[in-house]
Amino acid sequence: MSYLDGQVHEKLRSIVGPANVSSAPEDLQNYAHDELPGVVFLPEAVVKPANTEEVAAVMRLANEVPFPVTPRGLGTGLSGGALAVQGGIVLSLERMNKILEIDEANLMAVVQPGVITGELQKEVEARGLFYPVDPASLDSCSIGGNIAENAGGPRAVKYGITRDYVTGLEAVLPEGEIVRYGGKVVKNVVGYDLANLLIGSEGTLGIITEITLKLLPLPPHRVDLLVPFDDFRPAIRTVAAIITGKKIVPVVMEFMARAGVKACEAFLGREVPFSDAAAQLIIGLAGTGKAEVERQYETVAEICLEMGAADVLVAETPSAKERLWEARRVLLETLKAQSPGGEVEDVVAPRSRIPELGEAVAEISARTGFKMVQWGHAGDGNVHIAIMKMEMPDRVWEEGLPKVAEEIFRVAIGLGGSITGEHGIGYVKRRFITMALGAAEIRAMKRLKEALDPKGILNPGKIFPE
Amino acid sequence: MSYLDGQVHEKLRSIVGPANVSSAPEDLQNYAHDELPGVVFLPEAVVKPANTEEVAAVMRLANEVPFPVTPRGLGTGLSGGALAVQGGIVLSLERMNKILEIDEANLMAVVQPGVITGELQKEVEARGLFYPVDPASLDSCSIGGNIAENAGGPRAVKYGITRDYVTGLEAVLPEGEIVRYGGKVVKNVVGYDLANLLIGSEGTLGIITEITLKLLPLPPHRVDLLVPFDDFRPAIRTVAAIITGKKIVPVVMEFMARAGVKACEAFLGREVPFSDAAAQLIIGLAGTGKAEVERQYETVAEICLEMGAADVLVAETPSAKERLWEARRVLLETLKAQSPGGEVEDVVAPRSRIPELGEAVAEISARTGFKMVQWGHAGDGNVHIAIMKMEMPDRVWEEGLPKVAEEIFRVAIGLGGSITGEHGIGYVKRRFITMALGAAEIRAMKRLKEALDPKGILNPGKIFPE
Repeated sequence: MSYLDGQVHEKLRSIVGPANVSSAPEDLQNYAHDELPGVVFLPEAVVKPANTEEVAAVMRLANEVPFPVTPRGLGTGLSGGALAVQGGIVLSLERMNKILEIDEANLMAVVQPGVITGELQKEVEARGLFYPVDPASLDSCSIGGNIAENAGGPRAVKYGITRDYVTGLEAVLPEGEIVRYGGKVVKNVVGYDLANLLIGSEGTLGIITEITLKLLPLPPHRVDLLVPFDDFRPAIRTVAAIITGKKIVPVVMEFMARAGVKACEAFLGREVPFSDAAAQLIIGLAGTGKAEVERQYETVAEICLEMGAADVLVAETPSAKERLWEARRVLLETLKAQSPGGEVEDVVAPRSRIPELGEAVAEISARTGFKMVQWGHAGDGNVHIAIMKMEMPDRVWEEGLPKVAEEIFRVAIGLGGSITGEHGIGYVKRRFITMALGAAEIRAMKRLKEALDPKGILNPGKIFPE
Repeated sequence: MSYLDGQVHEKLRSIVGPANVSSAPEDLQNYAHDELPGVVFLPEAVVKPANTEEVAAVMRLANEVPFPVTPRGLGTGLSGGALAVQGGIVLSLERMNKILEIDEANLMAVVQPGVITGELQKEVEARGLFYPVDPASLDSCSIGGNIAENAGGPRAVKYGITRDYVTGLEAVLPEGEIVRYGGKVVKNVVGYDLANLLIGSEGTLGIITEITLKLLPLPPHRVDLLVPFDDFRPAIRTVAAIITGKKIVPVVMEFMARAGVKACEAFLGREVPFSDAAAQLIIGLAGTGKAEVERQYETVAEICLEMGAADVLVAETPSAKERLWEARRVLLETLKAQSPGGEVEDVVAPRSRIPELGEAVAEISARTGFKMVQWGHAGDGNVHIAIMKMEMPDRVWEEGLPKVAEEIFRVAIGLGGSITGEHGIGYVKRRFITMALGAAEIRAMKRLKEALDPKGILNPGKIFPE
């Protein structure tokens, strides 16, 4: 179905300038997918506004005509959330990519949505400040996309998620109204918190056009440990031994199984540390005092060895840390290269239930014959599971995958967890959302959506079950 | 206007039990006010459900009849938010006051809304854990009320506000549906975050019936400093010198002016430290390492003296800390005793603008003749201003107060701040909300309210301008 005729194209061109509307096939292709393989929807046009007013004008036009609008950051999502699944336009925020201010006096940054998260981090770190949220895609994802998804990352164990750092938002609502909520203030309880409603709403309730973020002082001392274990269970139990037993909350506590590490080694074409270990933990520690961090890592290393670790590799220099993180950093890329068309799940569970989750997933894998690689954020209960297609015939794969995914989700929910921790529901998980939320929750969500987007034109076909 | 006839009373009694519905005059009086003097609205009945199902049944009945329902925690609010300003019933959550679980393995607590915040803190601290949010009323306020208001407190500088600790909520929506969102999970991006919409919605969008809270390890080493200055300005500049200059974020940075301290001294009937100083800072530091905390407080003390502090009092023992906090703790009570019928403002501004805010407030006070006492959370930009009625004739007071308040709000907003940081809009600030939010924001809020509460029965007459 086509929503856009020549007149609408002309109006779009007049709003954002002719150079910023494209229907060229190669452009449509580029904006037809995210980082998830195999899910492709061509938009009718790609529109790139330069400022909030242009976003608002596009939304007013979209309501008038009407046509669907799918907002998009830098397209690094893993749930199909930024794809024009019902046609219409993709509204790319990529041109709104300025860091407007780094306010050192208030430890705040004001940025446009198209800023690359990693770029912002570099800029603030150069000033001794710290934006801790570190999604794996930080070198290519946008901060606006992070907010739409409420992105997490390894450092969530200690520092929390995107939501915890947003103190103000400007956004364009589905009907084209511009709203602002909050600002450079830590406390603010004036009316309903529209910012917190938009955070994590996956671009379905508003288009984020400006963001105020809280920063922290950069902890000057950071140490990373790589800890190999010869079994999965003691590795995971070590997480609890550190956090619950010793009341130490590390910055990161990442887990990788041998299958993943070995794959990375092959992908990189060189040895990585402890690649023969059944499981590895990466534990990051940080603090303001050198002695304090040293004392902490000694305590942590001791516990690891007590829990059965075969060794503890300590990285204090940038190059040593680089090497320690190497496999973890390329893991997703490796798995995608090894098994194009595979799928990545993103379940969560209370931290104490991660061992059960891991064992149940291994059991599902063994029983169904679907190869699975587990890794993730052991410290915050967010586990990623790559389901690898490998040599499996298409028909077997396509029939079996939803059942296998559903089994994994059922386990996570049964343990008190849920079906996505940081990737979002988007397009690909919406048929599963009713496993995690009941009819009352879905009904309330639907009412909120209809209240702000009565014509249903902003990012339609996402989140809600069909 | 009366909403409740004999039949409705009977139905309420059958839902919660006859002992838990009262229309006795002394009960209605007790639930007719919060901690704000002079604002009194009698409900028609006080209803005290014992569990979520009873809350839901009351809400279904309220929709059917219909009649207004005003949810109430323990009545310590300062904005009239828990008063039945349009009649109907007050729904008190006081009987739902159990700590359901302190989960040491996951650093989580599950509680009912009527639990006293300070009681929860004691319980978790006894296990080496920490719930850091500390509204001034913590010995008498409820955690449910804290969530409805998104309460802050002195420790927000380092640890943030109530919202930052809520990982799951169960609530009853205005039409009586029970919803659950989140749980013992740090990351969760399944659908719209209903929990974060309810937090800070002041009991107008849903009634919170169960809460899951994230806990931290209790920092074992804590030191408080009391620092007198002979002028307001250097005291406030010291805040920036510590946070921005030294990149140290203390746990608390409280400010008090001489007028307040002197009043407390008189109220307590005994000397308090440095009561002759023009201004005082209370600076709290905490950490896991003793040496680290010592190093920090030495650095902080040095900066204070460099910035012109007359002295630095260090409190490391509980009794010394008690004495150091004594004046700050009784300040609000003192001011209320000194000037019954006074008002307390709760403005916020970016931290760097607090000196300007302070000077502007002093100027307004001098020009208008309204006596004002300023104190508050200098470290997070949240300033409280008691406007003292004293001997002022009622007519002058009543005519002048809204203008004076409006002037203060205009200053705060002009500095990039807003009109309430932790007390909420409730009933008393709603005529000012349009100063802080524009028509588009109010319109969006109204739509959300109508979407969830089509009959407008849950806590009507709050937040929205008339």
